[in-house]
Amino acid sequence: MDFMVLRLIENALAEDIGAGDVTTDLLVPEGEKGKGYIVAKEGLVVAGTDIACRVFEFLDPMMKVDILAKDGEWVEPGSRVIEASGSMRGLLAGERTALNFLQRLSGIATYTRRCVKELEGTDVRLVDTRKTTPGLRVLEKYAVRVGGAHNHRAGLFDGVLIKDNHIAACGGIRQAIERARGAVHHLLKTEIEVSSLEQVGEAITAGADVVMLDNMDEETIRKAVEIINGRALVEVSGSVKMEDLRRLAKTGVDIISMGSLTHSARAVDLSMRISSKVEESANS
Amino acid sequence: MDFMVLRLIENALAEDIGAGDVTTDLLVPEGEKGKGYIVAKEGLVVAGTDIACRVFEFLDPMMKVDILAKDGEWVEPGSRVIEASGSMRGLLAGERTALNFLQRLSGIATYTRRCVKELEGTDVRLVDTRKTTPGLRVLEKYAVRVGGAHNHRAGLFDGVLIKDNHIAACGGIRQAIERARGAVHHLLKTEIEVSSLEQVGEAITAGADVVMLDNMDEETIRKAVEIINGRALVEVSGSVKMEDLRRLAKTGVDIISMGSLTHSARAVDLSMRISSKVEESANS
Amino acid sequence: MDFMVLRLIENALAEDIGAGDVTTDLLVPEGEKGKGYIVAKEGLVVAGTDIACRVFEFLDPMMKVDILAKDGEWVEPGSRVIEASGSMRGLLAGERTALNFLQRLSGIATYTRRCVKELEGTDVRLVDTRKTTPGLRVLEKYAVRVGGAHNHRAGLFDGVLIKDNHIAACGGIRQAIERARGAVHHLLKTEIEVSSLEQVGEAITAGADVVMLDNMDEETIRKAVEIINGRALVEVSGSVKMEDLRRLAKTGVDIISMGSLTHSARAVDLSMRISSKVEESANS
Amino acid sequence: MDFMVLRLIENALAEDIGAGDVTTDLLVPEGEKGKGYIVAKEGLVVAGTDIACRVFEFLDPMMKVDILAKDGEWVEPGSRVIEASGSMRGLLAGERTALNFLQRLSGIATYTRRCVKELEGTDVRLVDTRKTTPGLRVLEKYAVRVGGAHNHRAGLFDGVLIKDNHIAACGGIRQAIERARGAVHHLLKTEIEVSSLEQVGEAITAGADVVMLDNMDEETIRKAVEIINGRALVEVSGSVKMEDLRRLAKTGVDIISMGSLTHSARAVDLSMRISSKVEESANS
Amino acid sequence: MDFMVLRLIENALAEDIGAGDVTTDLLVPEGEKGKGYIVAKEGLVVAGTDIACRVFEFLDPMMKVDILAKDGEWVEPGSRVIEASGSMRGLLAGERTALNFLQRLSGIATYTRRCVKELEGTDVRLVDTRKTTPGLRVLEKYAVRVGGAHNHRAGLFDGVLIKDNHIAACGGIRQAIERARGAVHHLLKTEIEVSSLEQVGEAITAGADVVMLDNMDEETIRKAVEIINGRALVEVSGSVKMEDLRRLAKTGVDIISMGSLTHSARAVDLSMRISSKVEESANS
Amino acid sequence: MDFMVLRLIENALAEDIGAGDVTTDLLVPEGEKGKGYIVAKEGLVVAGTDIACRVFEFLDPMMKVDILAKDGEWVEPGSRVIEASGSMRGLLAGERTALNFLQRLSGIATYTRRCVKELEGTDVRLVDTRKTTPGLRVLEKYAVRVGGAHNHRAGLFDGVLIKDNHIAACGGIRQAIERARGAVHHLLKTEIEVSSLEQVGEAITAGADVVMLDNMDEETIRKAVEIINGRALVEVSGSVKMEDLRRLAKTGVDIISMGSLTHSARAVDLSMRISSKVEESANS
Repeated sequence: MDFMVLRLIENALAEDIGAGDVTTDLLVPEGEKGKGYIVAKEGLVVAGTDIACRVFEFLDPMMKVDILAKDGEWVEPGSRVIEASGSMRGLLAGERTALNFLQRLSGIATYTRRCVKELEGTDVRLVDTRKTTPGLRVLEKYAVRVGGAHNHRAGLFDGVLIKDNHIAACGGIRQAIERARGAVHHLLKTEIEVSSLEQVGEAITAGADVVMLDNMDEETIRKAVEIINGRALVEVSGSVKMEDLRRLAKTGVDIISMGSLTHSARAVDLSMRISSKVEESANS
Repeated sequence: MDFMVLRLIENALAEDIGAGDVTTDLLVPEGEKGKGYIVAKEGLVVAGTDIACRVFEFLDPMMKVDILAKDGEWVEPGSRVIEASGSMRGLLAGERTALNFLQRLSGIATYTRRCVKELEGTDVRLVDTRKTTPGLRVLEKYAVRVGGAHNHRAGLFDGVLIKDNHIAACGGIRQAIERARGAVHHLLKTEIEVSSLEQVGEAITAGADVVMLDNMDEETIRKAVEIINGRALVEVSGSVKMEDLRRLAKTGVDIISMGSLTHSARAVDLSMRISSKVEESANS
Repeated sequence: MDFMVLRLIENALAEDIGAGDVTTDLLVPEGEKGKGYIVAKEGLVVAGTDIACRVFEFLDPMMKVDILAKDGEWVEPGSRVIEASGSMRGLLAGERTALNFLQRLSGIATYTRRCVKELEGTDVRLVDTRKTTPGLRVLEKYAVRVGGAHNHRAGLFDGVLIKDNHIAACGGIRQAIERARGAVHHLLKTEIEVSSLEQVGEAITAGADVVMLDNMDEETIRKAVEIINGRALVEVSGSVKMEDLRRLAKTGVDIISMGSLTHSARAVDLSMRISSKVEESANS
Repeated sequence: MDFMVLRLIENALAEDIGAGDVTTDLLVPEGEKGKGYIVAKEGLVVAGTDIACRVFEFLDPMMKVDILAKDGEWVEPGSRVIEASGSMRGLLAGERTALNFLQRLSGIATYTRRCVKELEGTDVRLVDTRKTTPGLRVLEKYAVRVGGAHNHRAGLFDGVLIKDNHIAACGGIRQAIERARGAVHHLLKTEIEVSSLEQVGEAITAGADVVMLDNMDEETIRKAVEIINGRALVEVSGSVKMEDLRRLAKTGVDIISMGSLTHSARAVDLSMRISSKVEESANS
Repeated sequence: MDFMVLRLIENALAEDIGAGDVTTDLLVPEGEKGKGYIVAKEGLVVAGTDIACRVFEFLDPMMKVDILAKDGEWVEPGSRVIEASGSMRGLLAGERTALNFLQRLSGIATYTRRCVKELEGTDVRLVDTRKTTPGLRVLEKYAVRVGGAHNHRAGLFDGVLIKDNHIAACGGIRQAIERARGAVHHLLKTEIEVSSLEQVGEAITAGADVVMLDNMDEETIRKAVEIINGRALVEVSGSVKMEDLRRLAKTGVDIISMGSLTHSARAVDLSMRISSKVEESANS
Repeated sequence: MDFMVLRLIENALAEDIGAGDVTTDLLVPEGEKGKGYIVAKEGLVVAGTDIACRVFEFLDPMMKVDILAKDGEWVEPGSRVIEASGSMRGLLAGERTALNFLQRLSGIATYTRRCVKELEGTDVRLVDTRKTTPGLRVLEKYAVRVGGAHNHRAGLFDGVLIKDNHIAACGGIRQAIERARGAVHHLLKTEIEVSSLEQVGEAITAGADVVMLDNMDEETIRKAVEIINGRALVEVSGSVKMEDLRRLAKTGVDIISMGSLTHSARAVDLSMRISSKVEESANS
């Protein structure tokens, strides 16, 4: 929701501007106008233009912002992504925060796009994880979708995912799945994490909707897929790297989850060019 | 300050737990106790143990947490970093958030340590930039220090840094520096970003405390250092990579700033092992 | 999560105490101690004791609170539910807020228990809706569970529920279900609201996980159940009253949702008796 | 104040929408427009139209909302209360929250109106209590006024009301009243709760402005009114039911307070009809 | 309420410490202990010791604080007011904020005490106004009470005070008073501001509880008191100075309100002496 | 930043209006329009007009406000400072809060202007301190600049200021200065507080950027200035009074800091005149 994003922007600006932008307050007169372009310094998939625009609007409600390259577009080095014109003070105070959001989200989208390409021609769904930057999950999961992959659950609240400690607390796989299915609300499915073929069998018998194969080798994954045989969705997980994707896809699994989509995507390079504007129009 | 960190933890948990951890609420009884270890899955420099501990204490004020490897320590794969024992529900609900903080901050510290090593034997100071994750700057700048580098200014409020738009607004380098030095409070120094040797000369004449050489080649940097000749600190900046550090250090500059310390450090791999605990003590 | 509940308590106390409890501040000395009991004035199912206790602890961290009747227990008129002893000012300032939470949550639990009794001996699951008091949903849905019924989804975020406007926007039931199933994350099921038998057929063909029969008469419900024939869960909805429950259960549906569980349960009667305490102990 | 109401709306929407309206985000395109009517499903006194409108404006600042039946109006089943047209996503995301506010506030206004009717032809003032839903007091007390009754004090801060514990702490009724009158600011009156005729006499002698007769039978109330004889206002209180009002009014009291106005009014039935809109205008 | 005061402390510390106490973080080791005394540098009435103590406890929950001179006490220059021992970092970071609260609140209490002395031997009540520092009203009104004067209403919510614009909107003094008395809740009194003897008469006839004589000369005040003749309380107001008090008291008014008690009291001089502590105890 | 100022306004209004402006809500119809002027009742330097205007805009976004005397202007008694026209309810509800900000900030600016006049013809810089009203520092430091003086550091975060406890913790002046200079970021200068001529010498030798002479007599100050001889900036501090300024300036120091600029400036007298407006225009 917009108002949650505004909170993030407010926090980010408060952290950067604090008691004031001392340089700009001293050197740039209050009424001065300017125009700025955010430019890609490398090839990248754009993500986060909306939040970048709101940073400038937040600092100057009169700021005029235009998105020149939409989220999801691939742009070449040198391409202009956003244009903003309005108060010079607003442009200078917002520059770094806008870029910090953009470079991170576009970095995730760009890396995700490359991973998705690895899976072209398959039916496998590439999904993210909860390994996101604290406080930015909604934005980072959005960037994953912009890059062409899918989301896993958004948090602990919108999906049952049973792990070893849950199993231990219930006294077994069957008990855990049955208890969860009997009590959870009727729009949530139940996934269970297993680490052996024996557990795979138990999970299927107990009625799991999704089985997550954790850190198994390809051979075991193949056997698990055979055992499951369409009775549940199959997800593989565990330090998956981009170069593993194609091989994993061939094992017959339905879903591959990959933490590095969000936690290790390199920020891409964008910068802002601002120029003072001889104000032609008269509207103050 | 601690209460600011608590706000970050609260936001991170709210985003992950939301309306509730449905799996754990269904499957793990409220009174159950457990014990967990956070373990390094690769060699890394630890950073963020304090915030990770507070995540668990936030969820269960009775949680007992111990730091087994202090911030700044290098640990080998398999090393235990944190031990937490208390409510099983608290352990499970806090696991991901604690790890998300740790993997990011330790990632920055680990990468910074490697960069600092490149500069061993020189007097050059490696510093970060304002290219940080929105909302996490205080933590990320802390991780940079843990890794052995220094911080640049914390935000727009604690240092004057004059860029081209400020210069344009004032009508020249001299005017900008003079106006800033005359008005800023007497504990802040004045840095100016320049892109040519001519500007270097002007900046020195006008009395800049620090001169930032932006995106210059090594040859020009050397000439700039000669011109400045100790009359100001010299900082180089602009997409500096780890492999550039040693050569840049030899140019005679005082400070190298490097955005990738915070914006592109890869998260390191840590995980948590939780086990149910046969509760020996009787205090509920 | 606890800290969300603390926010609710803080808001409730701020609204009641505001600039200060003028009566108590004038008439009750700061150090005075007291003891209070919250007592049921009618037969009721207890719900909300935890939050009531936290109200007093919030006002006086030294307050000693005991829960005498647990959430879910049926208590007779005159029964003591909570005992609190500590600062007299804290008891008086918290009394109304604690009771306001308790009377509402216990009211929901009590009414829900009666409705659940109507369904005894059947397999039908009684669930709540999103028709809750703004800001109190987590607590009210908790009270429904205390009363013995189940929850429907917690909000718009943890379940797909396709209504007529969604269908219209997609160009038909089939298109809506297919698009949702193809894009939503793999732990969420898809429910669709239908209002005719023809739509029931379409929904089943398209693969809906749950079909909600909206405001149908019993005859039509029966026919819908026959058509669906176990291929999806069947939910009935629409101004269901307690006296309808038994008949609706006989139609063969799986789930009955009932907004009045939360929006129209009458508050039950509880009051607090406070007495001044001759302080025997010496710890200040 | 408006900004307090915005906080309530924000909280209510955050609780309902959380990580996103998954159904609508998947099935309804971002630019789609729609039009909706909120319709009364039973006869009721409207209350809360302003807050309902703000819900939609909050989600879509371009939303056009019209109030078709003003707060305080009696509307017949089928009447349109509010019209909103704008973003379809905003309509769908706001529908439930807007209705949840309206159904509760209109429920209180409707029930209050009926109670007020019972007192027609008398001078007795019907007032509410502090038995309100935590966090919604300002709105619920507003709905009471819309229904035609009056408010008692808003909280602990705007009126002295001395209860038994205050009396005990001061050593008697006289002492309590005197201390309060001597110290409280000069715009607040002093009310005292009494439970016997003897206490009534003491209260009057000590100069109470208002005497609250707590849980007395009609005969005793009559005697109390005689004793007081116009020297103070007389309020009766204590589980008053609608059917008691007329008889209580005849005892000669000035004020009757009734907790059920806010804590047990049944929500009234309203629903929203939304239709997709072929956008004729070109603005946006 | 305590939690409101905590918010003030949190804001004050955030504003002072921001991104960190750079001096102390660099020069004082984390575990170092210290002890500090807050000392009066001039004779003063102490006010605000509780909030000063909480500042230190907020920064270090293990801080041991003692109040050596209670709120309301007159202390001579050199007297110790508060002792705090605990983390040296906490002492240094909290010093300024604790003093800033204390010097302002004690300044108000000290000035108020002097004004109250002027009225010794009379029955006149000296009260403050709403001319307080934005955000600190609760504390400043508390300091006024500590100094021995009384409070006027706390805000716009706990007393009716009719001014000229209200009178104009209602069409006259009589109409305004009658409308207010008929609608306001029964624990609030009605005060009206008048500026002529004619208005005084009207106000009394209409039944005002309190009449505020605004900016009248002493002669007129005397006449107003005669006209009112005990039928309402009489308040004088309007740039009252300390040297006016005694004469005003002789006019027979009941209440004198004085904005300067809060808006122009000079801060008193207090400072803190901190010494490093050789830690004898072994805890922590 | 604007949004921080909005938070201050919101808090100030919440504290004043709370549960509602009972007088205005009862007596002034919702649609009524009015016009108001804020008028200086004494000669003063205006400061805070922007925040005063925002108070009214906050309460009524349609309010039209004009600044008739800009911040920094000297106005004579009777001068109009601000004009606001819009909702009468907004004018009445905002009046006190707007004035409370203005009277305090203009009071600081007015007093500062007088102090600055004392230093006319000298090169000495008059600066404020951190002795500000908790929560209002940004505004009060702004008022100091409006009055013509300079700011000292904004908080603990934007300047190193070494005091006796820091020196003690480091084992000496030299150690403290060296450690600070070696570790602090390169845009912050280092100031040290000294109390003897011996310490002055040590500080200079160790390379302090600024030396603060604390509570020294004029003779000692002169000697200190001689010793320092331009090798560092010299600041004097310690209960400086307006009448001391001229003499202190003659000692040759560079900077005089004066806490009373913010902590003891008397509020100046401003009031608001509101008149009902016959609405000529038709725009609702």
